[in-house]
Amino acid sequence: MIRPAELIERKRDGGQLTAEEITELVFGHSRGEIPDYQLAAFCMAVYFRGLSAEETLALTNAFVRSGSTLDLRSELGRTVVDKHSTGGVGDKTSLVVGPVVAACGVPFGKMSGRGLGHTGGTLDKLESISGFRVELSNEEFVAQVREIGLAIIGQSPDLVPADKRLYALRDVTATVDSIPLIAASIMSKKIAAGAEGIVLDVKVGNGAFMKSLADARVLAESMQELGRGAGRRVVALLTDMDQPLGWAIGNAIEIEEARAMLTGAETPPDLFSLAIQAAGQLLALSDLSIEAAEGIKRAEQAVDDGSAAELFERWIAAQGGDLSAGLPTAPVSRELTADRDGFVGEVSALGLGRVALELGAGRRTTDDAIDHAVGIRCFAKRGDPLEAGQTLAVVYGRDEAGAGRALEQIQQLIGIVDEPQPPRPIVLETLA
Amino acid sequence: MIRPAELIERKRDGGQLTAEEITELVFGHSRGEIPDYQLAAFCMAVYFRGLSAEETLALTNAFVRSGSTLDLRSELGRTVVDKHSTGGVGDKTSLVVGPVVAACGVPFGKMSGRGLGHTGGTLDKLESISGFRVELSNEEFVAQVREIGLAIIGQSPDLVPADKRLYALRDVTATVDSIPLIAASIMSKKIAAGAEGIVLDVKVGNGAFMKSLADARVLAESMQELGRGAGRRVVALLTDMDQPLGWAIGNAIEIEEARAMLTGAETPPDLFSLAIQAAGQLLALSDLSIEAAEGIKRAEQAVDDGSAAELFERWIAAQGGDLSAGLPTAPVSRELTADRDGFVGEVSALGLGRVALELGAGRRTTDDAIDHAVGIRCFAKRGDPLEAGQTLAVVYGRDEAGAGRALEQIQQLIGIVDEPQPPRPIVLETLA
Repeated sequence: MIRPAELIERKRDGGQLTAEEITELVFGHSRGEIPDYQLAAFCMAVYFRGLSAEETLALTNAFVRSGSTLDLRSELGRTVVDKHSTGGVGDKTSLVVGPVVAACGVPFGKMSGRGLGHTGGTLDKLESISGFRVELSNEEFVAQVREIGLAIIGQSPDLVPADKRLYALRDVTATVDSIPLIAASIMSKKIAAGAEGIVLDVKVGNGAFMKSLADARVLAESMQELGRGAGRRVVALLTDMDQPLGWAIGNAIEIEEARAMLTGAETPPDLFSLAIQAAGQLLALSDLSIEAAEGIKRAEQAVDDGSAAELFERWIAAQGGDLSAGLPTAPVSRELTADRDGFVGEVSALGLGRVALELGAGRRTTDDAIDHAVGIRCFAKRGDPLEAGQTLAVVYGRDEAGAGRALEQIQQLIGIVDEPQPPRPIVLETLA
Repeated sequence: MIRPAELIERKRDGGQLTAEEITELVFGHSRGEIPDYQLAAFCMAVYFRGLSAEETLALTNAFVRSGSTLDLRSELGRTVVDKHSTGGVGDKTSLVVGPVVAACGVPFGKMSGRGLGHTGGTLDKLESISGFRVELSNEEFVAQVREIGLAIIGQSPDLVPADKRLYALRDVTATVDSIPLIAASIMSKKIAAGAEGIVLDVKVGNGAFMKSLADARVLAESMQELGRGAGRRVVALLTDMDQPLGWAIGNAIEIEEARAMLTGAETPPDLFSLAIQAAGQLLALSDLSIEAAEGIKRAEQAVDDGSAAELFERWIAAQGGDLSAGLPTAPVSRELTADRDGFVGEVSALGLGRVALELGAGRRTTDDAIDHAVGIRCFAKRGDPLEAGQTLAVVYGRDEAGAGRALEQIQQLIGIVDEPQPPRPIVLETLA
């Protein structure tokens, strides 16, 4: 029997652990034989010393093997695809990508998280819809993917329990922000959930975990390697999160925005660009045997011809959601306008996310309840020309006081400058 | 209420905690409100980021305030002195220094530890003596210091409970080796135990926690500052631990060596030099109002005139020890002789400590029992001239096989070289 303290010490001193030792740490922890405090110290040592590619793979495999796994190929006889985002402000991409991909005939099956953040996770957003069920059994999940080509549900509790346990510990010990630990956690979930083609949307910028393109690239490449080690095809998009994605930041208003984009009613250009590129890559990873360029073309077509919008409706209905009931709306809305002519400078994703959190759109702790109705629509995108009086943002709040406070804060978060700004592309790099 | 995860994160990122925050971490942990896993992650962050002088002081104060404290000045109307060693191989200095100082009329009151190590701690060594009681109540402790001027006992369980709890956690999370954590742990115990004049023996070398003189100096200065912050006078000796101290490495044989030095029967020069210097410094820190040089003179005198030896006997008897019963002896002894003429080169304290541990003289885990009889006498000191056939060491073992194995190992640990070696002084630096 290995002594956990010796493994912690070796990692602390910059040494390497064998795959067996990593596995024993994870399984010992799961069995309750290695206490939380030793894993906590280990994770902090990893924060400072990192993990090698071999160690990260061993950790990922241990997470996967700790629970049950889905084999969607056997179940469906098809290549099922999935998309994962590392999380950002206003990120409703999956709500667009899923219907687009499914409308193109490729099964999309995603298990998603709630997570702590400035706004809810994809599941919280979906729960804005009256009656929507995020908790399906594995059988229901598979059946729905077979039937309509699309399901997005909460992570099955019997998948990667060791990751769940360790993540809960990392969350309260300041050891979340470690690239190898993030990579292993994400990829173990993706691998266990059974999709064979995976697009990773790795966010970069002040509103994301990864603040620099270099860090994002390291994380993306590590995740690609882990996925390939498990026989998956993985493409990573490194995408901008210095400013929010799309216009809506909240829960119900993000559902509304995704739906409006699919019907063509409203099209934030950055969200459209990202969703179409992600969908195109997913189609290229599927069993359609097409290139990404062709995938992108088909994805655009599915939006244009309304088939993606139609699939969105069928999907929501299939999971019990009733869109005819309307989405919750906030009692108070307040508008922020430009006080002068100019151009939009920096628009802080992090800052806007924090304001949304304060409005009640997100969770500070796992016990917090989310207010699905509140949020922000921020129309200002870096480089946009502005005229005095033009609407920059709208706040949706619970009450006048909160909305007023939010408006004041947002005013500080949207820069107005005199010189034209170069617009930033939403997809910074594609790692195929 | 502070969120512990935020404090861990701040330390992880190299920031500073306030005294209130440090106190809250320690007290929250003691109250069971902050779990072990958060303290473990915090300690690992401290391992990498360190603590400022202010943070270390706050930690020390929190430890002291977590339990009861002794006020020996009020109890005795005298300045009581104490000595602490950071631990080394063959370190029986306290067993000599205590009687010498007390024989010079200065009360010496020490609470000691058992500790994990190559050989037992001072308490384990004393328990080689039939009947010796290491567990006295605080009242008995004070009474004995008043009456005969000397008591060395186990740490009272109501002193620094928070340190005890945290140390147990550090021991199993590879977070012991942190200079500020070591400094706070040691000094909180010394401060709580009530002595006003303290000599710190900080060991340096392969057989010590501190491998370099620079690290030892940092630790010593930090501890001096902490002691002074609590109104104590503190002198630190940085002493060599590349080779063992004295000749005996074990438990009963170390008691025997201390006693033999006091009676003048046997005098290992390094032990004598260190003990007299430490005793001299303690006398200078006492209420005798003398300089260290005068203290050293009086210490030598107390050995020469037999008064220290007499005090040793009275002390052991006062704590219930019966020296007339004889000390335990090992069933097997084996001698190692020099295979050629030359000079002693390196003598590895670490290596000899490990052999002693394997013989049974120390503990690997807190549950291990110590064999008081076994050990090593190593007469070789770096620089000594050697003749072929001369005795280098004697092993005292439980059985022939173990003693034989030990002898083979020891042969590798005592270098014989052709060139004269410069002898190393035992006291490398004195920080007054």
